[in-house]
Amino acid sequence: MTDAAESGSLFDHLEASTGRERKGMAAKTSKSKGAAERMAAKQREISVSEFFTKNRHLLGFDSPRKALLTCVKEAVDNSLDACEEARILPELAISIQKLAGRENIYTVSIEDNGPGIVKAQIPNIFGKLLYGSKFHRLRQSRGQQGIGISAAGMYGQLTTGNPVRIWSRTGSRAIPHYFEVRIDTAKNKPTYEDKATDWDGKKHGTKVEIDLEGEFRRGQRSVQEFLKLVAVANPHVHLTYSDPEGQELIFESVTKDLPKETDEIKPHPHGVELGILMKMLHDSEQRWLSLFLQREFSRVGPKVAKSICSTAKLSDRAHPKRIARSEVDKLKKAIDQTKIMAPPTSCIAPIGEKLIIKGLEKEVEADFYVASTRSPSVYRGHPFQVEAGIAYGKPGDTMELLEDGKIIKSAKKKKKRPDEVLLADANEQIRLIRYANRVPLLYQQSACAINKAVVSTNWRGYGLSQPRGSLPVGPMVIMVHIASVWVPFTSESKEAIAAYDEIIKELKLCLQECGRKLGTHIRKGKRLANEFKKRNYIETYIPHIGQALQEILHLSDPQTNKTVKCLTTVLEKSRKF
Amino acid sequence: MTDAAESGSLFDHLEASTGRERKGMAAKTSKSKGAAERMAAKQREISVSEFFTKNRHLLGFDSPRKALLTCVKEAVDNSLDACEEARILPELAISIQKLAGRENIYTVSIEDNGPGIVKAQIPNIFGKLLYGSKFHRLRQSRGQQGIGISAAGMYGQLTTGNPVRIWSRTGSRAIPHYFEVRIDTAKNKPTYEDKATDWDGKKHGTKVEIDLEGEFRRGQRSVQEFLKLVAVANPHVHLTYSDPEGQELIFESVTKDLPKETDEIKPHPHGVELGILMKMLHDSEQRWLSLFLQREFSRVGPKVAKSICSTAKLSDRAHPKRIARSEVDKLKKAIDQTKIMAPPTSCIAPIGEKLIIKGLEKEVEADFYVASTRSPSVYRGHPFQVEAGIAYGKPGDTMELLEDGKIIKSAKKKKKRPDEVLLADANEQIRLIRYANRVPLLYQQSACAINKAVVSTNWRGYGLSQPRGSLPVGPMVIMVHIASVWVPFTSESKEAIAAYDEIIKELKLCLQECGRKLGTHIRKGKRLANEFKKRNYIETYIPHIGQALQEILHLSDPQTNKTVKCLTTVLEKSRKF
Repeated sequence: MTDAAESGSLFDHLEASTGRERKGMAAKTSKSKGAAERMAAKQREISVSEFFTKNRHLLGFDSPRKALLTCVKEAVDNSLDACEEARILPELAISIQKLAGRENIYTVSIEDNGPGIVKAQIPNIFGKLLYGSKFHRLRQSRGQQGIGISAAGMYGQLTTGNPVRIWSRTGSRAIPHYFEVRIDTAKNKPTYEDKATDWDGKKHGTKVEIDLEGEFRRGQRSVQEFLKLVAVANPHVHLTYSDPEGQELIFESVTKDLPKETDEIKPHPHGVELGILMKMLHDSEQRWLSLFLQREFSRVGPKVAKSICSTAKLSDRAHPKRIARSEVDKLKKAIDQTKIMAPPTSCIAPIGEKLIIKGLEKEVEADFYVASTRSPSVYRGHPFQVEAGIAYGKPGDTMELLEDGKIIKSAKKKKKRPDEVLLADANEQIRLIRYANRVPLLYQQSACAINKAVVSTNWRGYGLSQPRGSLPVGPMVIMVHIASVWVPFTSESKEAIAAYDEIIKELKLCLQECGRKLGTHIRKGKRLANEFKKRNYIETYIPHIGQALQEILHLSDPQTNKTVKCLTTVLEKSRKF
Repeated sequence: MTDAAESGSLFDHLEASTGRERKGMAAKTSKSKGAAERMAAKQREISVSEFFTKNRHLLGFDSPRKALLTCVKEAVDNSLDACEEARILPELAISIQKLAGRENIYTVSIEDNGPGIVKAQIPNIFGKLLYGSKFHRLRQSRGQQGIGISAAGMYGQLTTGNPVRIWSRTGSRAIPHYFEVRIDTAKNKPTYEDKATDWDGKKHGTKVEIDLEGEFRRGQRSVQEFLKLVAVANPHVHLTYSDPEGQELIFESVTKDLPKETDEIKPHPHGVELGILMKMLHDSEQRWLSLFLQREFSRVGPKVAKSICSTAKLSDRAHPKRIARSEVDKLKKAIDQTKIMAPPTSCIAPIGEKLIIKGLEKEVEADFYVASTRSPSVYRGHPFQVEAGIAYGKPGDTMELLEDGKIIKSAKKKKKRPDEVLLADANEQIRLIRYANRVPLLYQQSACAINKAVVSTNWRGYGLSQPRGSLPVGPMVIMVHIASVWVPFTSESKEAIAAYDEIIKELKLCLQECGRKLGTHIRKGKRLANEFKKRNYIETYIPHIGQALQEILHLSDPQTNKTVKCLTTVLEKSRKF
């Protein structure tokens, strides 16, 4: 089309609608011009706090009940990360108390013995979404986004109007600080008051208090269950918990060994995307392409760097900032074609088979325990490691929770509540316990890669029944843990893991490893049961046969005994074992 | 605890671990002080673009296949919103073409006849996440977050290094603009080039081109299916689509009526949260509390405002900015206690029962169609409206897709592909089609409130079979649409709706309304079938009975005929119908 008049004559033969529409357009043109300007006037920036206030279900604050759990979870995650990073054995005190005179309003308080927070950082950490130290590094930690705790504070502020209260002290000789922090949601910035305090808490540590609208319940997906599962996967952590009904629990640590200290790593060249590579080249302070490759990536030595450069037909002394767009493309291809060692795995600290079994033994009474830790693998350049444990009970048994922390003070008489029984009797689906970087995941199981991997594993091959497209059925608990420098969660509330192919594959291999051992156990169990039945037959009928033979053949008693003995031996030998 | 020495002597009788730990702490103190500072040095702000680059699966870019669909979806949503806001009948041309010489790289192009975008806004709209006009207002639209199209551009940039290209013209006399926009992810800001263009496209409209890594496939969850479903719920839209294999499709509009123009509304007082109320009071320009209530909220007149003020024991002439914290609490309670009319629903435009049935008829061949549109309801102060339609085929039939757009040019000979057959034969689960604000939702069905509502409706009561906890089984398609000023999606990729109780309730009521009518139809069908069977018996056996009677009673032929006639009448009368 070059000219409206010309196109008019050219397309006159087209159906009526075109003509009508063209007229319509002319009439609308002036209106639509106004529309573009009208719309432009309304365009404006949305602050990330406003976004998450309106979308607070994305952060796990969709219902008062879940909000309470999410708040505890975010604070506990932060405390444990801080303690471990400072190599301190974590001791946490969690308390949930009803706020006097206000319905459904609770004060959640989490106190740790961590390294404390320096004064200047407190307002930002608690009063700004997307602020933190864990996002830009590649290293396993519970938190990774810099959203969690400030979101909890924002939710508290939204529902109660009260600020987050923080006490912190970085050492016995340091002055303790007390802050009251609010978020200015329109700007995603903290407003705060810094008050004097004579906090007589720990010598170093942090205490956070948030008032929020919540709903306190026990049972599945409760704070208590969360803490219990934290204790299972974090045997080095000491937790105390007092709930609004006056019950106090202690989850004692069972080991004094902190998890292996993890290293921060550089990204692996095979996971880097074109756009990122361009940005890295542009931002780099290196002068030579070869040095850029060696210093900004992991597993690239001089030899690999040279090989990449020559494959890409680029000089290894080229200046990173001056590499042209089309050459970056070649560089990316060269990187993908070059064989490079898998990324270092010192950035990941799995729980380990022994501690998984220890944790499961503490958690569920079962006949058979098995665990498996895979060697690390990579998705999108990020190392990750998968481990699984299985506790299997006697068929027909209902598996129960063993010990629910040590109850040191109880408002009510302790009674086994039905919701405390693990849903894992012989005719129910197995129970699946999911962890990511040692944090239990309680919601959105069906959307999680772990669930998908368990469902798509063929458990019938290991002697379990399994309805099509479902979890297997039986007296079994499966615990799965994914550790990674960057866990790809399906939402900011970190409740389910996205189903990347590489992750699903590793999960299935891990489950199969456990499954094979379980299969052997179950089959052995079945053989033993058959064996036992047979032995019973022999024991029951041999004496009668002996009597009968004695009568028929007129044998003496010793002769009978001897015959019976021979017969038993022969019959027992005929058993296959 | 007041003094370390005192506490030491007081608690000496405690278990050894306390002592050990206290010593341990002293040793660690210096180390942990360093830790707090070390950590502080690493704390920094995370830009929202960086966040979503790393978390791009949250935006629907987890796999190349889904990325292609998401990109088309975001662009189409924006075009349709813009056209409707400017009251223009939308005509969209969508094209996906392979980029020559690059594997798995496609150019997605979407051109509309909308109002165009003013020059100054183009870089921000396409080069900044969380920027837009729809977030801060309460009015039904497809987009609501200001993330979608810039995220698509960011993904394109990440995987191909190429910028987003935009042509736009706001009217026939306006100069067309051409922009190449990139996102500076570290700052979440656009960088762009503004180039001269002699775009000879529409007189007004916008064209967007994005190069991205994708995977082209047909069948379920393809771009083609998406566009088809868009056409079903948007009968006023005219779409053309050309795919990389050279096939061109037209989805013609079937109505010239644009959806009802929606109004922007003020928030409803019953949905406001304490924190929001505090912020609104603080930001308000009104001088009197009474005026604040009337002007900042919907459905508050002088009488209601006065009643709220008196319940809260506040003067109606109090200055909004000077209301104390504790008084806001009272005000909130007073608002909740006051009876206030439901929010206006002029902000929502449902599809309507007639057009739903029309859409379904176009989509699937069935025996029976029914639709139901509920009256609007409210969750968290946001009005929403639910509608559903059912197409039910003959039991045993396999329901097929009727027409797949008009194929005007086909690279291959057209052949019915098996993936085009709707999964809705008698022994399969029904097919569920979900919409939110007229946008089809293709992923994450199991996480969606719509799915949950369908599963928890008792379809056995309406004559269908339904396995426990599953969708019903049968030759049926259910289409459900939720329209709202703010759809609570479970993630930024807008694939599933969060299960708010109010929404689930409305969905179930709507499905039940349809279900009851369906039940009547199915029962009628069963009765008719029985009836038909019985009539067959009568017709088959009566002549034989006639003959037999004739022989036994020696009747003449007329007598026999008369008897048979009487007998038939008597038997037919005995049928219940």
